[in-house]
Amino acid sequence: MHKYVYSFAEGNRHMADLLGGKGANLAEMTRMGLPVPPGFTITTEACRWYLRTGAVPDGLFDEVLDHLRELEACLGKTLGDPRQPLLVSVRSGARYSMPGMMDTILDIGLNDTTVRGLAAASGDERFAWDSYRRLIHMFGTTVCGIPGQPFAQLIADAKRERGVNSDADLTAEDLRNLVEAYKKVFYEHTGYDFPQAPHEQLNLAIMAVFNSWNSERAVIYRRQERIPHDLGTAVNVVAMVFGNLGPDSGTGVAFTRDPATGAAGVYGDYLPNAQGEDVVAGVRDPVPLQELERIDPRSFVQLKEIMSRLEAHYRDMCDIEFTIEHGKLWMLQTRVGKRTPAAAFIIAAQLAEEGLISLDEALGRVTGAQLAHLMFPSFDLTGAETPIARGVPASPGAAVGQVVFDSARAAEATTDVILVRRETNPDDLPGMIASRGILTSRGGKTSHAAVVARGMGITCVCGAEAIDIDPEGRKFTVNGVVVQEGDIISVDGTTGHVYLGQVPVRPSEVVRLFEGTLAPDSSPLTTAVHRLISHADRVRRLKVYANADTPEDATRARRFGAVGVGLCRTEHMFLGERRALVERLILAEDSASQQAALDELLPVQRQDFIEIFRAMDGLPVVVRLLDPPLHEFLPPLEELSARVAVAQARGDDPGRDAQLLAAVRRIHEANPMLGLRGVRLGLVIPGLFAMQVRAVAEAAAARIREGGDPRPEIMVPLVATVQELEVARAEAQRILAEVPDAPKIPVGTMIEVPRAALTAGEIASDADFFSFGTNDLTQMTWGFSRDDVEGTFFPRYLDLGIFATSPFESLDRTGVGRLITIAVTEGRNTEPELPIGVCGEHGGDPESVRFFEAAGLTYVSCSPFRVPIARLEAGRAVVLAAPDESR
Amino acid sequence: MHKYVYSFAEGNRHMADLLGGKGANLAEMTRMGLPVPPGFTITTEACRWYLRTGAVPDGLFDEVLDHLRELEACLGKTLGDPRQPLLVSVRSGARYSMPGMMDTILDIGLNDTTVRGLAAASGDERFAWDSYRRLIHMFGTTVCGIPGQPFAQLIADAKRERGVNSDADLTAEDLRNLVEAYKKVFYEHTGYDFPQAPHEQLNLAIMAVFNSWNSERAVIYRRQERIPHDLGTAVNVVAMVFGNLGPDSGTGVAFTRDPATGAAGVYGDYLPNAQGEDVVAGVRDPVPLQELERIDPRSFVQLKEIMSRLEAHYRDMCDIEFTIEHGKLWMLQTRVGKRTPAAAFIIAAQLAEEGLISLDEALGRVTGAQLAHLMFPSFDLTGAETPIARGVPASPGAAVGQVVFDSARAAEATTDVILVRRETNPDDLPGMIASRGILTSRGGKTSHAAVVARGMGITCVCGAEAIDIDPEGRKFTVNGVVVQEGDIISVDGTTGHVYLGQVPVRPSEVVRLFEGTLAPDSSPLTTAVHRLISHADRVRRLKVYANADTPEDATRARRFGAVGVGLCRTEHMFLGERRALVERLILAEDSASQQAALDELLPVQRQDFIEIFRAMDGLPVVVRLLDPPLHEFLPPLEELSARVAVAQARGDDPGRDAQLLAAVRRIHEANPMLGLRGVRLGLVIPGLFAMQVRAVAEAAAARIREGGDPRPEIMVPLVATVQELEVARAEAQRILAEVPDAPKIPVGTMIEVPRAALTAGEIASDADFFSFGTNDLTQMTWGFSRDDVEGTFFPRYLDLGIFATSPFESLDRTGVGRLITIAVTEGRNTEPELPIGVCGEHGGDPESVRFFEAAGLTYVSCSPFRVPIARLEAGRAVVLAAPDESR
Repeated sequence: MHKYVYSFAEGNRHMADLLGGKGANLAEMTRMGLPVPPGFTITTEACRWYLRTGAVPDGLFDEVLDHLRELEACLGKTLGDPRQPLLVSVRSGARYSMPGMMDTILDIGLNDTTVRGLAAASGDERFAWDSYRRLIHMFGTTVCGIPGQPFAQLIADAKRERGVNSDADLTAEDLRNLVEAYKKVFYEHTGYDFPQAPHEQLNLAIMAVFNSWNSERAVIYRRQERIPHDLGTAVNVVAMVFGNLGPDSGTGVAFTRDPATGAAGVYGDYLPNAQGEDVVAGVRDPVPLQELERIDPRSFVQLKEIMSRLEAHYRDMCDIEFTIEHGKLWMLQTRVGKRTPAAAFIIAAQLAEEGLISLDEALGRVTGAQLAHLMFPSFDLTGAETPIARGVPASPGAAVGQVVFDSARAAEATTDVILVRRETNPDDLPGMIASRGILTSRGGKTSHAAVVARGMGITCVCGAEAIDIDPEGRKFTVNGVVVQEGDIISVDGTTGHVYLGQVPVRPSEVVRLFEGTLAPDSSPLTTAVHRLISHADRVRRLKVYANADTPEDATRARRFGAVGVGLCRTEHMFLGERRALVERLILAEDSASQQAALDELLPVQRQDFIEIFRAMDGLPVVVRLLDPPLHEFLPPLEELSARVAVAQARGDDPGRDAQLLAAVRRIHEANPMLGLRGVRLGLVIPGLFAMQVRAVAEAAAARIREGGDPRPEIMVPLVATVQELEVARAEAQRILAEVPDAPKIPVGTMIEVPRAALTAGEIASDADFFSFGTNDLTQMTWGFSRDDVEGTFFPRYLDLGIFATSPFESLDRTGVGRLITIAVTEGRNTEPELPIGVCGEHGGDPESVRFFEAAGLTYVSCSPFRVPIARLEAGRAVVLAAPDESR
Repeated sequence: MHKYVYSFAEGNRHMADLLGGKGANLAEMTRMGLPVPPGFTITTEACRWYLRTGAVPDGLFDEVLDHLRELEACLGKTLGDPRQPLLVSVRSGARYSMPGMMDTILDIGLNDTTVRGLAAASGDERFAWDSYRRLIHMFGTTVCGIPGQPFAQLIADAKRERGVNSDADLTAEDLRNLVEAYKKVFYEHTGYDFPQAPHEQLNLAIMAVFNSWNSERAVIYRRQERIPHDLGTAVNVVAMVFGNLGPDSGTGVAFTRDPATGAAGVYGDYLPNAQGEDVVAGVRDPVPLQELERIDPRSFVQLKEIMSRLEAHYRDMCDIEFTIEHGKLWMLQTRVGKRTPAAAFIIAAQLAEEGLISLDEALGRVTGAQLAHLMFPSFDLTGAETPIARGVPASPGAAVGQVVFDSARAAEATTDVILVRRETNPDDLPGMIASRGILTSRGGKTSHAAVVARGMGITCVCGAEAIDIDPEGRKFTVNGVVVQEGDIISVDGTTGHVYLGQVPVRPSEVVRLFEGTLAPDSSPLTTAVHRLISHADRVRRLKVYANADTPEDATRARRFGAVGVGLCRTEHMFLGERRALVERLILAEDSASQQAALDELLPVQRQDFIEIFRAMDGLPVVVRLLDPPLHEFLPPLEELSARVAVAQARGDDPGRDAQLLAAVRRIHEANPMLGLRGVRLGLVIPGLFAMQVRAVAEAAAARIREGGDPRPEIMVPLVATVQELEVARAEAQRILAEVPDAPKIPVGTMIEVPRAALTAGEIASDADFFSFGTNDLTQMTWGFSRDDVEGTFFPRYLDLGIFATSPFESLDRTGVGRLITIAVTEGRNTEPELPIGVCGEHGGDPESVRFFEAAGLTYVSCSPFRVPIARLEAGRAVVLAAPDESR
């Protein structure tokens, strides 16, 4: 017969696929000889069978019974025994922890009879009835789907009748009455009595755990996290131990190192004479774990010894849950512990220093996302500040500014402002862009405000529900504090805290390290970051370039470790006062005046390039020819059209506006992202690309004459077919050959239109390099424009689990990634040595960088700020891809 | 040594790759024993070598000399002989005929000495000097790149001095003087004398033909036609024969059947005592070929016999060029002849009838494009009409209407109008859409007017250069005729002719045949079309559906042979008076009023579906759920914004406009084709898809209750990821299960977003069928929107040869086709029986249908009008893919 149940003594931590994470770790601790309450695990296989067929596998319950007998024998207690009743907990435990699945049902085995046995055995009648009440409540809601409200109502009524505020003030008598009332609720909702047979309770609970695999929240979570729907969950059945049996009992949680700072030494909380759920309920405040040394020195020493063994065994910081029952220590759970970003770096570096893990492994344990968090400024808190509110930390950073309540004012503000709204919508966009921070009282991580703010790198706290906003009154109230428009607040997007007044902002230590204004050994954090990023630089294969349009950005990127500029956008050089030249180019009525406008642009562009080449002397600078549709340089159609209509209605002469309106109408496009832009502009407007290519070549020649080492490359945007590139490149090469003293300048292309990726084998024959524009590629592969949809349907899609993250944030490997793989493979089939980079925003996204490493790219290019993140992730990509993680 | 030269006796018609089309056919005729002047062909291989290395292969000119010797021996004349000089022509001849390549140089071998020998031998001094003059002109311009203008100037001067109008009136003396003047021009432009050595002339001409392979026009043509650049051209060297040596000489062209009507019997023109170039120059009018029977009965009989042999040999209608020299007939060229669409059908059907070819082969010889031409109405001409102008036939059809000169008037017109413009631009779009026909005086087949008109199926003639348009005067003048705005003209988009006044329009015979109002045996054309389309129906595998949104369209499609509706768009059902309901839906401020609007839409939609299901009783009807972005149902932002601004400026209350403006602003998108549409709408607007699905199911149930056989299918648009389909389909299935009496209704998806194609393997697991939306797929794969770019950069792209045809017109096999192949393969890997169709406009494009057959699709769906074209092409696809073309 197939084996579906493993006692803890039979498993180990490598069996997480079969036993789930929790079960595998309980088995591992048992195997290590640690004091784990006896128990067993029902495998994920059993769950899969159940989900497939709707029934448990034949013989499963017999196998459960056999293991239960062992457990009873071991403890000398029996399930359902009226005097010495064994109680068990039933806990779900999948391979990956998953919100929305049933978590735990405690005290299985209690019924009208055993409750009295428990009272006698524990000597605490109140405890026994309270446990029974809780069992009916938990069983009713999680196994039978009864809403929680009637139970909550009954207990509230009981407290009101008794005139008390806390559950703890209810007597054993009250609780016994509540049990009766709960049983009535149970019957009313299910049509049958609360099951008195402990084995029936157990079997129903097991099936309920199986069913919870398909709860709506769990399904959505899996859809979001791309966890296969057919893994199933394991079920752990564990003997109950009690921490609430007197002063020699208690319960606690502990970490083998400080999870906030990474500092060495045990760390945790202990609550004497309590059960785990009391900690959650906040009935009393726990004491620091160190107190246990005074309360129960023997258990404390044992616990410290166990923690040290666990850390050495798991070779990482662990967290644990434990209970002490009458002076006997029991381990209820362990796992590799969660930690703050700073702690992650410090712990990883320290473990490597201690020789417990290799530097490769240490590098694998920190992430670019953690590094990104450390690169935001933070508030310099004295500890005396009390937040006035707390919300969801939706987009990190520390923002200080004056409160404004509507987007129009935010957009007009000349000082730093924080936009405060109940929630935001697409109309708020201009105001959001203009704000230092955004604070909302509704919505979570997937709300419009959160999605947009993250996309734009604006600090955001949302869903701060305690805040009552009165937009008409231009104020908000929170816990009695009234904040008026214009008052200053400080918003911490990393913690979700909101402070009244100006909290000093401390620049990031890590940024100062990268900028060279802080020495590597300034603090444990800088030491750790320096060590790990240096190791990443040693092991990585991918080069890291930066996207930079100005000499300032280029210089900064270089300091941050960029070895080239992978995207120098020329359109940014057309903004500001130079816009007038572009307007002239667009309004030109014949080719002579068009050429005249181009001739005026040439020296301006040349000077831009000279300065960037100087900043990046000796390193490649990839210049992208003009890409955006021309109307981006003119006022919006809507605005002009209203202006001209008003002037005409008044009988005024609309003047230049009329001329502009005509031009804007002429070049107006319903879908500018799918229009006349990129190489198409270059082929349609005579002389435009030629002017830009000439400016690049002349700038390089000028730099050479002044002794520099310019390394420009020219990149043609938006190519969809090799014929476009053929024509544009031939023109570029003709111009390059005309400029005296110019160095050899490669001419390559962006791969940002799906067709370019699909025909990369052809395109490679006419390109000196490829660079993926993953933004446009994502846009066209998915069929949505980032500008339009992030705020409209993304929140809904994130809620439905259709996306886990926005594909603009983290590269969609399945769809867009497939195009990239096709293009790399077929491009290199044609030109084996073809350099291939990426210059979309994904170039600095941690997850995406690992994909680009695997895809065999030559370099990633990202914003200067993200260069260190890309360096770290490029190193991680190598060590994580290595067959032996602990090499 | 490698063989680079083949005498005509050595080749045959299957050697076109090596000998080019012309050379292979000359060899074939020689092999058949027909009287071909002796000659030889230099292979494409020699040309390729030359183009690769810049020099002719070693020994090539020796090989040419050897063959020349054979030729001289055969004719008893020698190149350069002062008394009996041999003259030869040098002709290019690639595998595919190609404009822009050098065509022919005649009379190679003439120089200052041999010209006198030719005069003596022919007894015609004038002829000899004229030939020499022409040689210098042709050689100078085509071999040495001298502009034609100075030669033309000299001859014009000579005629002016002599006071004559025609070249023919110049004397031998005049021509001898011209030769001297031409030689001076030659020297001035080249720096050397016109080469007197006949062998040097020959070798230079051969290399000039090689070089002409890379002339700019030839390169662009190859880019347009996707002809590889490395094929090279062959060169034919042929002994000259002369048709201008007296009344027993002459020249002509002939067809083995009438190329206009397909009628059996020889057909052609003959010009006594003339050379081929005289026919081109139009010196005298030729006589019908039949006259030759009287002039030279022996040659006539011989020619008829040759033509009959050629037709039997080539198993198709051939055209030929011939010359008679002193009563001796020479064949100069033959090839399968060009013909009109009607002739193509009639000839193919007749040849099959005569047993010369199989019906499969006959089917392979007609095209859907030809059938499409035959389905347009045409003018019923008496023969008495004289066109007032002729332009480029840019978009077929016969349009009659009042002349208007600006788009605004065209857009407002309540009668049929013809828009007349010098050229059009995107601003003219509304007027173009409103016109029956478009006439321009500038631009060719790739001009804005031509591209847009073809895209919209509007009759168009462009580049009618004789027309002088005076838009301010609201009139145009052409050859003295003045046409005022409001005058009626008739424009023939099939021939390019323009007539003054109303020419009666005759409906297409072929359409009447398909509609059943004309019997198959009514005319040779209907007989032929009926026979070939019936054969196509017998052999084809692809089913043909139609796109139809109304019962009328569905009925028409059914008559035209559609066996289903592959695309029933529901948005069209929301237009007109129902738009108000959609406005209510969009303006609804809470979910209750949103639902109320949906509840009102439900019965309206249900009734639409009942009627379409009735029209298509027993056949599938694929209903697409709402696809377009919502703002398509509201007035444009620009318009509303101007209206509200004006009202406010005047101090008026903008009223409902302000409310609409707010709504339009809220849902405005910068790129609506990449936005909130399709399945995204369905997932974001609660109840929208549910209402539509319910309407379909209830309509089907109603039809079943009235005894019908409804076969609806539901199609979800714009899916990019299986998760979207999963959610939308689950909702649809829930609704379908709720409707009593509803039949089983499949729920499938469009594949129109690149990502859907790339992940079709996943999507297939949740789809009952796929249908490719090739319009959107093309748009996103190429990154341009049909609305915006067809008129802006397509003309330029067509000119540059970047496109051969618009990818919206004919499917881009390389890019979009690859996505289709991926989706079909991977979709069927998941679901081997998955039905897959296409419902974009490509479904009715002849070229594309052949691709869809090869890709293994189940059906194509196209506009009702295109159903017969798709049927024909689906049949052709099968017979053309068959290994033996003559099965």
